Amino acid sequence: MTGNSFCVALIHYPVYDKNGQVVTTAVTNLDIHDIARTARTFDADRYYVVTPVTDQQAMVSRIVSHWQDGWGATYNPKRKAALDLVSVAPSLDAARQDMAVRCGREPKIVVTGAAGRPGSVTCVELADRIAAGDDDYLLLFGTGWGMTEEVFSAADLVLEPIRGSGDYNHLSVRSAVSIYMDRLFGRR
Amino acid sequence: MTGNSFCVALIHYPVYDKNGQVVTTAVTNLDIHDIARTARTFDADRYYVVTPVTDQQAMVSRIVSHWQDGWGATYNPKRKAALDLVSVAPSLDAARQDMAVRCGREPKIVVTGAAGRPGSVTCVELADRIAAGDDDYLLLFGTGWGMTEEVFSAADLVLEPIRGSGDYNHLSVRSAVSIYMDRLFGRR
Repeated sequence: MTGNSFCVALIHYPVYDKNGQVVTTAVTNLDIHDIARTARTFDADRYYVVTPVTDQQAMVSRIVSHWQDGWGATYNPKRKAALDLVSVAPSLDAARQDMAVRCGREPKIVVTGAAGRPGSVTCVELADRIAAGDDDYLLLFGTGWGMTEEVFSAADLVLEPIRGSGDYNHLSVRSAVSIYMDRLFGRR
Repeated sequence: MTGNSFCVALIHYPVYDKNGQVVTTAVTNLDIHDIARTARTFDADRYYVVTPVTDQQAMVSRIVSHWQDGWGATYNPKRKAALDLVSVAPSLDAARQDMAVRCGREPKIVVTGAAGRPGSVTCVELADRIAAGDDDYLLLFGTGWGMTEEVFSAADLVLEPIRGSGDYNHLSVRSAVSIYMDRLFGRR
């Protein structure tokens, strides 16, 4: 991989549950498919599904294989093209390292969340930075009730939350990834 | 309902399957939830789940009730707020009529699809029209391999397809709805 790159990662650990406890959420089939299709549409280099649970890692690999090599690859080649982007990673750090190896340099880590935070960058600002081509970016999306404070603190950049028409900000992670990707990379 | 309004409809019939046959697709639980959350975020007035299959209509009602009145309403009030927008409609015409009754006038029908078509309006143009407040709009989203030609022909407006970074245009309908809503109504 040469030049400017961006990847997305869906974080199943460490995230909060409804009560603020740090948990590992379950990987869902549709998160794999929908976000892979979005990642392919907007030309991400990898889509990391991050979970420390080995059974879940195996499940992701099985689903991806079905569409890459199994019956699914013939049935729907477009889906294969999307799922080819999926990599399983046991931790955020492993995803970061994999991307660093692929790119030959450390990516900047960008976190997203539904709550506004001081010092956030806007999508326009980040799109400009990405277009400048000086860095590679790994964009993190949380499951459950969002990534832990530690993940936010350790990140290089925090991206502004998506605001709809009012105060309701409870999009699915699949919707949030789609909107962020379009704001950053969509053609109008 | 007074003033300018917009609603979304997810069409399960009439749509094409992979081979160009007109079929009825199955309603999925996640289409109900994800699109309801997106509709609430961007302040749609209703989200019509359109299917002629009575068993599927009953399933939608059961799911919505669970989150409106059942255990789900207490567990997650934010989800209730989203699912309150869901109406089941046996046909596109029934959805249109329901909206006409609610608004006191016929809505303009807007279709969306992945293929480019001559005479399409852009999201910016449609957003301007909506902001002008002269009409109400019912935005149609297809399942399966997209809505039939008859639906496109009968519509008042065709909205431009979402373009990503390349030629791949196989977003999930959940992603497409999210991106269209953000392009039309999102604050930046």
